Amino acid sequence: MLYIVGLGLGDEMDITVKGLAAVQSCARVYLEAYTSVLTVPKERLEKLYGRQVLIADREMVESDLNAILDQADIVNVAFLVVGDPYGATTHTDLVLRAKELNIPVTSIHNASIMNAVGCCGLQLYNYGQTISIVFFLDNWRPDSFYDKIRANRAIKLHTLCLLDIKVKEQSIENMARGRKIYEPPRFMTVNQAIEQLLEIEEKRDENVYSKHTIGVGLSRVGASDQKIVAGTLEELLDVDFGEPLHSLVLAGEMHFLEADILRTYAVNVDTFNKYAIVSEH
Amino acid sequence: MLYIVGLGLGDEMDITVKGLAAVQSCARVYLEAYTSVLTVPKERLEKLYGRQVLIADREMVESDLNAILDQADIVNVAFLVVGDPYGATTHTDLVLRAKELNIPVTSIHNASIMNAVGCCGLQLYNYGQTISIVFFLDNWRPDSFYDKIRANRAIKLHTLCLLDIKVKEQSIENMARGRKIYEPPRFMTVNQAIEQLLEIEEKRDENVYSKHTIGVGLSRVGASDQKIVAGTLEELLDVDFGEPLHSLVLAGEMHFLEADILRTYAVNVDTFNKYAIVSEH
Repeated sequence: MLYIVGLGLGDEMDITVKGLAAVQSCARVYLEAYTSVLTVPKERLEKLYGRQVLIADREMVESDLNAILDQADIVNVAFLVVGDPYGATTHTDLVLRAKELNIPVTSIHNASIMNAVGCCGLQLYNYGQTISIVFFLDNWRPDSFYDKIRANRAIKLHTLCLLDIKVKEQSIENMARGRKIYEPPRFMTVNQAIEQLLEIEEKRDENVYSKHTIGVGLSRVGASDQKIVAGTLEELLDVDFGEPLHSLVLAGEMHFLEADILRTYAVNVDTFNKYAIVSEH
Repeated sequence: MLYIVGLGLGDEMDITVKGLAAVQSCARVYLEAYTSVLTVPKERLEKLYGRQVLIADREMVESDLNAILDQADIVNVAFLVVGDPYGATTHTDLVLRAKELNIPVTSIHNASIMNAVGCCGLQLYNYGQTISIVFFLDNWRPDSFYDKIRANRAIKLHTLCLLDIKVKEQSIENMARGRKIYEPPRFMTVNQAIEQLLEIEEKRDENVYSKHTIGVGLSRVGASDQKIVAGTLEELLDVDFGEPLHSLVLAGEMHFLEADILRTYAVNVDTFNKYAIVSEH
């Protein structure tokens, strides 16, 4: 059996009771470590599980699925994913390969930012499509998110922005020389995301949002030190959200109950009340 | 401390290790039992927790928040919610009331259908806004979902349809007479949802979707007997999805990898290939 187990968002204790039992039944335990990151050292997982945890990086998952699935028809193998197994990235190739080999697959779900973001008070069914914001480079500043935000805002919906993570990336020089030397992990902050958003608004100039649009910055959702701050994008530029991971929501039109909750997280209640778009029904 | 604890989607073992520890620290444990339902008897929760579980129905939550929060400044109280605490309904009033009383609130997240639906292979960031389909009555057949589906499909997005649940509802006669007699719980099936969708398409006739649109019916997601079936809406009308809870997805344009996974759940691969809209990039 291949178990694909969501670890949730906080620390090692956010695994489910069912997930923990599954992991403890496994001969091998892999941790997917390239689309997201643990907020705790993997040794804490190993202590809770009583199992060694093997790191599955992008190279391994993209080139060596058979190693992960080796003998999974006769022993249990766990593939751990931060958040939900099907949160931001589905491990499509792994599931399809297991099915080809007639290896049964069981998914054990958990929270991901895609549903936990509801904690800020904006209701999940009032969100449109989720967008991703990647680190801009000097000559590569992709703005396809702008049209998606416009589509959401045209019908008054909120937009969840997932912020870029760079794990185990090579510099161009090291890649060119075939040196397996990796850069330190980088995580986009709420502040960087807002800078990029405002740069694109300035460039496109189609009035999709502005520095006065109400946003919500979130960091370490689900951890004991999670931070949620609401304010205009301009205000949020100056807020220190601390350690990763960060996420950002652009608020659309709010139901007054949504506004009542979100206001409790406001940097400044006066500007919040001035710029929030609130409906009474 | 008030703990708002998500129970996840399957059985009592889907609580997180952190959530279980929190519940076991509580003097009182309430289960929210009107916006969703457990798939197991509450006695199984009580056995795992070593705690009595009190049912919090709509009347209690809407009229007697102070009873739930009584002494929560000096003892721990748990409020259990099927799925994630902020899945389909935020318990806004409870959180706001606790904040007014200076009672600290800790949320413990879990999977909800809003993220677990990713298990069918359609990626979460390709979904538009989520819609709700309520049971039609003879003289009340609300179709506001139609415009929302149109907005999603116009930009090729998938649509998650949450299906109605009626728990502890009174008949009009019993309500008029003030008799606290409740109807048995009812859960909308995938088949009923499709009938209502096709009725509204026939009435509005704006070609937003049709009986040939590819849908995905899901039941008991996260449980060991979960069922996922893809097919045209017409095909899914005849599929028995069994026990509740049911959900339905209307597929938009699929990336070919999404189609590769979803095809493995198809009623009929030929009709799936004929009617699926698949992009190559």
